[in-house]
Amino acid sequence: MKGLMKLKKGEGNVEIQEVNEPKPGPDEVMIEVKATGICGSDIHIYHGDIKIPLKPPVIMGHEFSGVVAEVGDKVKNVKIGDRVTSETAASVCGVCRYCRTGNHNLCANRLGIGYWINGAFTKYCVVPKERVHKLPPNIDFVSAAVCEPLSCCVHGVIELTGVTAGDVVVVTGPGAIGLLTLQLAKAEGGQVVMCGTSRDEERLKLAQELGADFVVNVQKEDPVEIVNDLTQGYGADVVLECSGAPGAANFGLEVVRKKGKYTQIGLFGRPIEIDFEKIAYKEIKVTGSFSQRWTAWELALKLLSQGKVKTKSLVSDVLPLTQWREGFKKHEEKSGVKILLIPVD
Amino acid sequence: MKGLMKLKKGEGNVEIQEVNEPKPGPDEVMIEVKATGICGSDIHIYHGDIKIPLKPPVIMGHEFSGVVAEVGDKVKNVKIGDRVTSETAASVCGVCRYCRTGNHNLCANRLGIGYWINGAFTKYCVVPKERVHKLPPNIDFVSAAVCEPLSCCVHGVIELTGVTAGDVVVVTGPGAIGLLTLQLAKAEGGQVVMCGTSRDEERLKLAQELGADFVVNVQKEDPVEIVNDLTQGYGADVVLECSGAPGAANFGLEVVRKKGKYTQIGLFGRPIEIDFEKIAYKEIKVTGSFSQRWTAWELALKLLSQGKVKTKSLVSDVLPLTQWREGFKKHEEKSGVKILLIPVD
Amino acid sequence: MKGLMKLKKGEGNVEIQEVNEPKPGPDEVMIEVKATGICGSDIHIYHGDIKIPLKPPVIMGHEFSGVVAEVGDKVKNVKIGDRVTSETAASVCGVCRYCRTGNHNLCANRLGIGYWINGAFTKYCVVPKERVHKLPPNIDFVSAAVCEPLSCCVHGVIELTGVTAGDVVVVTGPGAIGLLTLQLAKAEGGQVVMCGTSRDEERLKLAQELGADFVVNVQKEDPVEIVNDLTQGYGADVVLECSGAPGAANFGLEVVRKKGKYTQIGLFGRPIEIDFEKIAYKEIKVTGSFSQRWTAWELALKLLSQGKVKTKSLVSDVLPLTQWREGFKKHEEKSGVKILLIPVD
Amino acid sequence: MKGLMKLKKGEGNVEIQEVNEPKPGPDEVMIEVKATGICGSDIHIYHGDIKIPLKPPVIMGHEFSGVVAEVGDKVKNVKIGDRVTSETAASVCGVCRYCRTGNHNLCANRLGIGYWINGAFTKYCVVPKERVHKLPPNIDFVSAAVCEPLSCCVHGVIELTGVTAGDVVVVTGPGAIGLLTLQLAKAEGGQVVMCGTSRDEERLKLAQELGADFVVNVQKEDPVEIVNDLTQGYGADVVLECSGAPGAANFGLEVVRKKGKYTQIGLFGRPIEIDFEKIAYKEIKVTGSFSQRWTAWELALKLLSQGKVKTKSLVSDVLPLTQWREGFKKHEEKSGVKILLIPVD
Repeated sequence: MKGLMKLKKGEGNVEIQEVNEPKPGPDEVMIEVKATGICGSDIHIYHGDIKIPLKPPVIMGHEFSGVVAEVGDKVKNVKIGDRVTSETAASVCGVCRYCRTGNHNLCANRLGIGYWINGAFTKYCVVPKERVHKLPPNIDFVSAAVCEPLSCCVHGVIELTGVTAGDVVVVTGPGAIGLLTLQLAKAEGGQVVMCGTSRDEERLKLAQELGADFVVNVQKEDPVEIVNDLTQGYGADVVLECSGAPGAANFGLEVVRKKGKYTQIGLFGRPIEIDFEKIAYKEIKVTGSFSQRWTAWELALKLLSQGKVKTKSLVSDVLPLTQWREGFKKHEEKSGVKILLIPVD
Repeated sequence: MKGLMKLKKGEGNVEIQEVNEPKPGPDEVMIEVKATGICGSDIHIYHGDIKIPLKPPVIMGHEFSGVVAEVGDKVKNVKIGDRVTSETAASVCGVCRYCRTGNHNLCANRLGIGYWINGAFTKYCVVPKERVHKLPPNIDFVSAAVCEPLSCCVHGVIELTGVTAGDVVVVTGPGAIGLLTLQLAKAEGGQVVMCGTSRDEERLKLAQELGADFVVNVQKEDPVEIVNDLTQGYGADVVLECSGAPGAANFGLEVVRKKGKYTQIGLFGRPIEIDFEKIAYKEIKVTGSFSQRWTAWELALKLLSQGKVKTKSLVSDVLPLTQWREGFKKHEEKSGVKILLIPVD
Repeated sequence: MKGLMKLKKGEGNVEIQEVNEPKPGPDEVMIEVKATGICGSDIHIYHGDIKIPLKPPVIMGHEFSGVVAEVGDKVKNVKIGDRVTSETAASVCGVCRYCRTGNHNLCANRLGIGYWINGAFTKYCVVPKERVHKLPPNIDFVSAAVCEPLSCCVHGVIELTGVTAGDVVVVTGPGAIGLLTLQLAKAEGGQVVMCGTSRDEERLKLAQELGADFVVNVQKEDPVEIVNDLTQGYGADVVLECSGAPGAANFGLEVVRKKGKYTQIGLFGRPIEIDFEKIAYKEIKVTGSFSQRWTAWELALKLLSQGKVKTKSLVSDVLPLTQWREGFKKHEEKSGVKILLIPVD
Repeated sequence: MKGLMKLKKGEGNVEIQEVNEPKPGPDEVMIEVKATGICGSDIHIYHGDIKIPLKPPVIMGHEFSGVVAEVGDKVKNVKIGDRVTSETAASVCGVCRYCRTGNHNLCANRLGIGYWINGAFTKYCVVPKERVHKLPPNIDFVSAAVCEPLSCCVHGVIELTGVTAGDVVVVTGPGAIGLLTLQLAKAEGGQVVMCGTSRDEERLKLAQELGADFVVNVQKEDPVEIVNDLTQGYGADVVLECSGAPGAANFGLEVVRKKGKYTQIGLFGRPIEIDFEKIAYKEIKVTGSFSQRWTAWELALKLLSQGKVKTKSLVSDVLPLTQWREGFKKHEEKSGVKILLIPVD
């Protein structure tokens, strides 16, 4: 089968190659991939600047949906033909404090598909049975291929932060993560102010369609003024920082109210300068989220199935796997939001 | 009466002057000061580099204990002769969200005694009746004069952070705040690792006497190793940063475990460079505390009365008010821990 | 002016009488009443079986909206002509732990208007300035007269329980409280199953119009089956018991999932027999809510103004005060939902 | 080997019989039992009135410590000769929401050793590798045999309730569970009032030795008065009900303060009459705990190792397995606290 591979570390070294079809072990499930998403991390893998453990040569791709094609002897939770999606933690220790409590995302020995173990930019992908989630009947493969980033956002927004009905919520960064975050904040009853820059004009428009109460190009308008108007000058109840831009982090700590919540979802890639003592002066509750866990996947699928969040609207392009270069380019240029690749024979 | 005053803004301008004795208004209480503590903020006021609203000329001093000398017409909660201490928020708006919920410390219009309204480095100090707390019989004036910093720590450690029995708690910065923090972490059942530097040797010794399970001079020993030994390599359950040193903040985010708690109690005075995304990678719960509130004072007095925390051990020097220069100098040179001034006629 | 009064304790003793117009004290606000709601407690006052402190002769009525008609010298937060509603705690001690932290509803010395102090079933009602809330421009007097029960529900549902998006929420008892509770659970993203009995058929229909995902007449259908279908057999994430019927409480503890939340909002009036150890076997988080507090009122008005909850739909009848007997009767017979009385000259 | 067996359901049917030595499966660990405790549930099993799934004939006993005697092929976490104790959930589904999040105690398919699978009242006991915990070197077998009830209490007191330093904590029922609960409340900084009856005089004395600040025979003294004295009349911050007596539950809801915490640890065996609406009037946070989970075991061993709780003091009798009748009798008559049985060849 054809797989898009990272062949060795460093810049580039990504190519489609012919690889053997895999076989599932006794506790594994082989999934025929129907749709896969390009993630920002894939661009980082391409450029060789990823922090997450990577073991090339490896088939890339970790956001996907598909159909169960084969199951190991001991698999009982799914059967051939089931429509599914899968978590990305292919291997975890199973005995640490985090594994013991359902936080596999934080296992020090976590190894991910598409990084360390062959991923989903190909025809068949093998994953441990514990990671597979069945799709509710009303979720199509395109929507389901965006379940991985949605689960990350469910984990960050709902599981780790929590929005209360009526909260004024500022979301910074209207990329795929920001646009999913926005919808989840709305689902919990928030009033959302989505902030972006001039290069995000298209995405801000999409944010508005997806329910943002206010969208702000921070290069043209002052978001602090908007938030103060909405909150009698107190500041935002919740800030969800999805951009990974240091300026957005500082803005977030500025605009959040005393005793408000700030959650870091985007990553900076390096230490940043920040007015850290604001956390003390304002008694802000700061946290951040990394990846996702089983409970977040279940809730993501539930909310998707209930129509409380829409992932399909984020899919700007669906390309055959062979056009991966175009997809990666579009992602990097922000000329699309979520770009899917479809495996080819 | 004699009062130690900040006469005008800028460096210095601090002197003992003769001032008229005050009169309490109908809702106010006049306290005869028995003992007052020198706080780090007093040094900042001296040097003219304080951020908190200041209106000279003003009598300095905001940590104190004393005896009720006179009460206004409408005062019912205390009477002449009562042994008391007092909160420091002399004026608050009373109608904002924070005032309404017992968080006067966060009122945007909070004005403090010793900053905006005459303070306690003198014979008589007048405060609103709502801010006065009666002393339990077994608390002497010297112990009670340290109630203000103790309440700050109760607020930060117990009210905002919370230590679970068995937690490994790292405290950075063994000054007065750190040494009170340590005792509160112990009172909640923590195992405390107190970190300081070579100039803190004396204070680290005191930390040990006050119950620290481990004291570390980070210039000689690696505290990460000690914490890893205690936690099977997971890292500290709780970090309480009391030093206000940027290096300590970065160390704190490094040594805290995934899903652990980090609370900023010390202040930096400026933006700092920090590996902020660790908060996301490790899903740390970060917060900070500012000043204190009524509930924290009540709990501080209760713990002091129950003997669960000792403030007297922190008092290194008791000087007459006239020797304030010596007291300020000792504080600045860290040659004492908590230095008290006693009013003079 | 004409006021509907409870003249003395015991059954009945309720009549319209002529009373003098009040004068506000320096810290008080006099409100010209525009609309007032009949509460279940008013029926209990009528029958003489109320537990809350009552001091007849007193004008009844504690759910209302109106216009500021006069203000005391020291009132700054509202002015004559302002459209307002008011909390009901006319007198609290101000110094207990609950008053100090914004929980006036739990002050042991709380005395309510319409119980201890003259209430709103009349032309002018006087309240302390701290209890008055201005109405947003898009809220009319009829909607605002239902703010008091809405605030109770905001307190119980949002402040004390908390619904997470996607939660399956069972609400028992489709009276005014249940129908407001339902809307709040929806506003927070819940999937709501509203349960009633055959005498609630009309109200269940209204529940459906107000957004209930499922309505169940428990005498015809088995709600446990419906909930199990929705939750893969786990049980409800949240139960909000609004009926005050012992059977509903036992059903609630039965249908809630392990580690789920159960909140008692209705009252029983007496000890009940209950399978109390289910709380241990299932590790349920049980709590209850009593009355409301300032923060709940602010949030209630915000949600009403944002259109996230509708109180007007609950108003089944608007009668002149002189027809109070008809209103009380309808309430008791459950032939309306929320019945308003309009003062008469 | 000799095993104490429940032979069939109903009253009695308990006998020592000769059984074959077990063999561990590939993922199992065989433990040579050194000490085992008699639990209240064993008495219920004896009398045939237990609710937890039971499959006789089965070797009873589920509180124990021992040495690893043999391990399956796939076992890596322990080796022959390790000193260990073990959780009691021998079989769980592994895929439900509770198993996925570390709450095996709540798995609907949980089957326990000593109930469904052969237990520890014998020489060798086989358990899944995931359930085994190594003993810190300073914990002896007698202390470790009490780890199971200690873990239950850690789960209920620390994980599910949480005591804040300075809290006034009422513990009702000074049996083994109550005496462990008391120590945990003390470890978290609580001030503990232990309540019992005249038949508990000996145990109340032990409670005092173990750190209770006050012990009350409720038949002689009024515990409400004591609590009110300690709390300025507010009531207890926390109530931990360990007796399973309906009167204690009602007393607990009475004595707990508004917004306080009440946790049900004891079981009643049947529905009880209770003033359930107090939960609403006082906005009490009520919960309960069932069994324990991995995190509770780890914390129990940590606290035991740190000396913050003592289990050995609870061991009143150590008898050879052959004297089980005497042990059961003493337990039932409350003439001891924790009675251990030692296997015989």
